[in-house]
This record gives sequence, C-alpha cells and structure tokens, in this order.
Amino acid sequence: MALTSEQRVRRAAVKLFADKGFHGTGIRDLAQAAKLSSASLYHYMGTKEELLAGIMRECLTRLLTGAREVAAGQADPPARLAALVALHVLTHARRPAETRVVDNEVHALSAATRREIVRLRDAYEQLWAETIQDGLAEGVFHDSQPAVTRLALLEMCNGVARWYSPRGPLELDHLAIHYAMLALRMVASAESDCAAAVRAASEVVSTVWRTPL
Amino acid sequence: MALTSEQRVRRAAVKLFADKGFHGTGIRDLAQAAKLSSASLYHYMGTKEELLAGIMRECLTRLLTGAREVAAGQADPPARLAALVALHVLTHARRPAETRVVDNEVHALSAATRREIVRLRDAYEQLWAETIQDGLAEGVFHDSQPAVTRLALLEMCNGVARWYSPRGPLELDHLAIHYAMLALRMVASAESDCAAAVRAASEVVSTVWRTPL
Repeated sequence: MALTSEQRVRRAAVKLFADKGFHGTGIRDLAQAAKLSSASLYHYMGTKEELLAGIMRECLTRLLTGAREVAAGQADPPARLAALVALHVLTHARRPAETRVVDNEVHALSAATRREIVRLRDAYEQLWAETIQDGLAEGVFHDSQPAVTRLALLEMCNGVARWYSPRGPLELDHLAIHYAMLALRMVASAESDCAAAVRAASEVVSTVWRTPL
Repeated sequence: MALTSEQRVRRAAVKLFADKGFHGTGIRDLAQAAKLSSASLYHYMGTKEELLAGIMRECLTRLLTGAREVAAGQADPPARLAALVALHVLTHARRPAETRVVDNEVHALSAATRREIVRLRDAYEQLWAETIQDGLAEGVFHDSQPAVTRLALLEMCNGVARWYSPRGPLELDHLAIHYAMLALRMVASAESDCAAAVRAASEVVSTVWRTPL
C-alpha cells in the first residue's frame, strides 16, 4: 500500500525525532527525509510542533485504546496487570521509535499542547493505577507506595524501546512474559498465567497498529 | 567556590544536553549559557563531541567508583543489590541532568568514543551482573532470565532522573529504600535491611559528587 504524503512526513518525523530529538531535527532534515520541499512540508504538517503533537496524540490514543481493551478482558487484578505490562512491553519493542518520541519529547511541547498530551498519558496511567489499587483492595497485591511502584513499572517497561532488538536471543513473547512476571513480583502478587495475558495483549497490539500512524 | 571557565562550560553543557539533547544544542547556545565567545568556547572544550564525551566519562567514572565502593562493603548478594540500586537511584535523583545525558546520548557519539564510553558502562553493569549471579549461585535469588532482569532493573532506576522532584511528597531516602525493596522482590529474594544499604550508598554518593563535574 503506497503511503500518502502526510504518512511519509509522519514516518520520517518519527524516525528523526526518535534518533535526534525534536530540538535536533530541522525542517530541512524532515523535508529531505520525506522527499518534499520545505514549502510542501508546511502544507502537509503545519508547524514542527503540530507534527510532534500529532504523532504523540495518535500513539497515545492507540496505547490507551489497547490498554482499555486488554483491561476490560481481565477482571482479576494480577491478570490485568500482566496484560497491561505485556501491552506496554510489546508496543515498545515493536514500535521503539514512536514510543521513544512519546516517552522523551513531552517537555518539547508548548504549554497548551502539553496539557492535552499529558491528559491522554494520565488517562493511560490511570488504568495502571486502578489495577494496582484493585489488587491492593482485594489483598492480592502488597505495596506501601503504589504511586512510586507504578512509575517504576512504567519506566522499567519504557526501557524496552531503548535496548530490545528483534535480532537478540530472546523471543518477544518470552520477553513480555518475563516482564509481566517481574511486575507481579514487584507488587508481591502470586504468579498469574502471564502467557495468556501476553497472547491477549499481542493480538490487541497487532490490531491497534495495523494502519500506518 | 568560583567555577573555572571549563567548569562553567561543562555545567552549561550538562543542562543543555539534558534539556535539548546533543543534536539540539548549538555551539552558540553553549557559548551564551557559559557567557563566553564561540572562539573561547572551542579553547576550553574542543569540539562539542569532546565536551559530551568528557561529561559522560566523568559521570560514569563516578558511578563506577561509587558502585565498587558500596559493592565491596556488602558480601551478601541481597544487601549488595540493595546498595547498588540505592546508589543508582540516589545518583539519578540528585544528578538528573548528568545521568540523563549519560543514559540518553550514547548514540550521539562517534564509533571510537562510543566504544570507550560503552566499556565504562559495561564495567558498571558488570557489578550488577555479578551480584545477581552470586545471589543465584547461593540460592538466595531466583530468576530464569538474569540478563533481562538486570536491564529491567537499570531502566526502572534510570527513570528516577525523569520524574523525581525534591519538592514531591516522598523523602529521597524512602524512595531509595522502596526501589531497593522492589529490586529484591524482582529477583525473588528475602527482604534485606534496605535502610542500611541506602545509608551506605548515600554517604558514597555525597563523597563521589563533592567536586564539580
């Protein structure tokens, strides 16, 4: 399927923002990578910040859609946490550039846009917070600092976008199972069926990322 | 104590590289922040890459020195892992700009310099690997993917440089104790005296970072 000019610009921007950062990427770099003149580039993308905001909005919306879907399928807090971790890890491993942009470039946004993007991120993290809270309330998780543990979990999983390589020795599904197990250990939960959670998350990731960003 | 021009340049570079990335920082930004002309800047720092490499080398050397010191003081693998985690968390919380540059900008280095910096980072991570290996060999840790768990641990702790604020509700020592406990849970260890490990690490961090970078 041929990409539209908008999609080509967005794809070039994801790669450049991930590799060189938002501030390190010039309009000319973008135009060159998308094979457009700077003038056509403005036509397709608006300002550089609008391009960044568009990428973040779309990527976070997909993460949020996916997380709501896997969370809705798992009433049990350990299985739900395992599925959320698997979704996050699989997304970061399969879409390292997109997720690095989301995780690293929020500070580059102006105040109004940042508020909008942070609201999306908060909605996503809220699903994690509720899952941990539910596990504590049911007595199946044990943790004295759930807000800190949530941040530790998210950062542990974000890191996958920085180091994971599909050419490495570990199969991606096994990696996700291992992360889900580490997460359950962190909240002192009995182990759940992490393999089932990873299968559910894997299907959702494939669906959510089927179309170009 | 007045800073030398070299120290002023380095301090400005740490802040700019951390906020805008290496590629997003221009020579003129650096000169302006350090209150020098571009020509004097070259005199004090050499190229922009030499400046980045100098910051990374010094920061990693301090991390490595500190880690060797805390590891040498703890024969027991759980106490040693707790102390390494505490050192890493305290360093990232107290020196977020320096550690963000070390954690995020390795890819910006040219091949030869990157090899040198990655060697330092490998030496540091080797202390973590040995500690986990010792715990497994003694049967006090349980983990089927120790290399993955080490990366997960490091990324979880790196994240502190991104979100920790000294104005937040959690005291830094309590944060480090919580992280040390999460780490021990991740390797299925019985809990160790994390408060003692944090006290030891805290003293080492203060000593190692006493002089300007």
